[in-house]
Amino acid sequence: MSALGRPKAVVLLSGGLDSATCLAVARAEGYECHCLSFAYGQRHDVELEAARRVARALGAAEHKVIRLDLRAFGGSALTDDIEVPRPADEAEIGRGGIPVTYVPARNTIFLSFGLAWAEVLGAFDLFIGANAMDYSGYPDCRPEFLEAFEQVANLGTKAGVEGHRFRIHAPLLRLTKAEIIRKGAALGVDYGLTHSCYDPDPRGRACGGCDSCLLRKKGFREAGVPDPTPYRT
Amino acid sequence: MSALGRPKAVVLLSGGLDSATCLAVARAEGYECHCLSFAYGQRHDVELEAARRVARALGAAEHKVIRLDLRAFGGSALTDDIEVPRPADEAEIGRGGIPVTYVPARNTIFLSFGLAWAEVLGAFDLFIGANAMDYSGYPDCRPEFLEAFEQVANLGTKAGVEGHRFRIHAPLLRLTKAEIIRKGAALGVDYGLTHSCYDPDPRGRACGGCDSCLLRKKGFREAGVPDPTPYRT
Repeated sequence: MSALGRPKAVVLLSGGLDSATCLAVARAEGYECHCLSFAYGQRHDVELEAARRVARALGAAEHKVIRLDLRAFGGSALTDDIEVPRPADEAEIGRGGIPVTYVPARNTIFLSFGLAWAEVLGAFDLFIGANAMDYSGYPDCRPEFLEAFEQVANLGTKAGVEGHRFRIHAPLLRLTKAEIIRKGAALGVDYGLTHSCYDPDPRGRACGGCDSCLLRKKGFREAGVPDPTPYRT
Repeated sequence: MSALGRPKAVVLLSGGLDSATCLAVARAEGYECHCLSFAYGQRHDVELEAARRVARALGAAEHKVIRLDLRAFGGSALTDDIEVPRPADEAEIGRGGIPVTYVPARNTIFLSFGLAWAEVLGAFDLFIGANAMDYSGYPDCRPEFLEAFEQVANLGTKAGVEGHRFRIHAPLLRLTKAEIIRKGAALGVDYGLTHSCYDPDPRGRACGGCDSCLLRKKGFREAGVPDPTPYRT
């Protein structure tokens, strides 16, 4: 519990549209939010800047950035110099199976750190903006994975052994991108602060053509909410 | 598979007695061993030096050290400036429940990184020197935790979705310290290269009085194997 009597939660925050909405949901549910971001050798530090802006704007109690060394392993377009794919349109996304932007075990690593921090804070609620609807093909965004991680959290910690019950919250899991945007807009999220693009230019401007940009554009279009993103194309 | 036709494995290696033995077991079972150590803000870099020596001596194919930022969270005598306890003798170890040397979610974090690397390597076997017999009280050394993590590995990775089956091997799980030492000695482990102490002096010499030193002394005594460790006391 916080000094104000609110339960504490750890919220994984990438600076993207989904995790910003996830933070807004956690806040609306009454949690004192301790946000956690990762600098994992991704090519776009612009994500972290977005995460800082979002944490501030949405009243996070705290925001930590952990530097990780995922480039040491390689194996993904987001950490290596593999070219980010450019589908012809959003209908093409996911046709090739799990995309090259998949980062091995990324959410397992992120949740592990979130769990460590949660246990130190005395927080038993972890929020992640994982989404299994708009096809992304990431295995570590599926409900069965999140349930398995909840088991790990409760079996592998001192708090779990002592009878506390960790819960992994994924409030966006079964929402479409348009539903996420409508929910966030209703909760006052300023999506102009968020960043989704896998391949921004040096000034941080979204490319407009990667999977993530196409899904974002489509989401705003379908939600009937103006898209504040200044895309290059 | 390696060039020599041996299956690859990722082996978590701390430089301690248990993980050195675990590496020797993995080698003896025919795996090409890719060893992974962590610099996680622990007060004793001497552990990493031991890990390097052990990896070399036991013929590891590769050894990576990942720098982590666990001190950012705090919460343990191994990462904070909490005093390491000095029990009167080994019979006192564990009486106080989970020890202050517990590091929140440590094995969850270590296994997550091991999983990421394994997936990149095309390795589906992870070895960890976890031990649930000689009482250490760490929840993340219990079989039910390791089974839950195996689930996470198979559900949260591309390789798992594609039908590969990750296995978490903990060959020391149900052995006493004396049995571990006898097994390692039979496999040619030079325990003089390993390091167990929670509180070494600046030159890396073991204190002789912490939980880990007491369990180590007792193990050698019971195994009837000479203890090569130069303890301070």
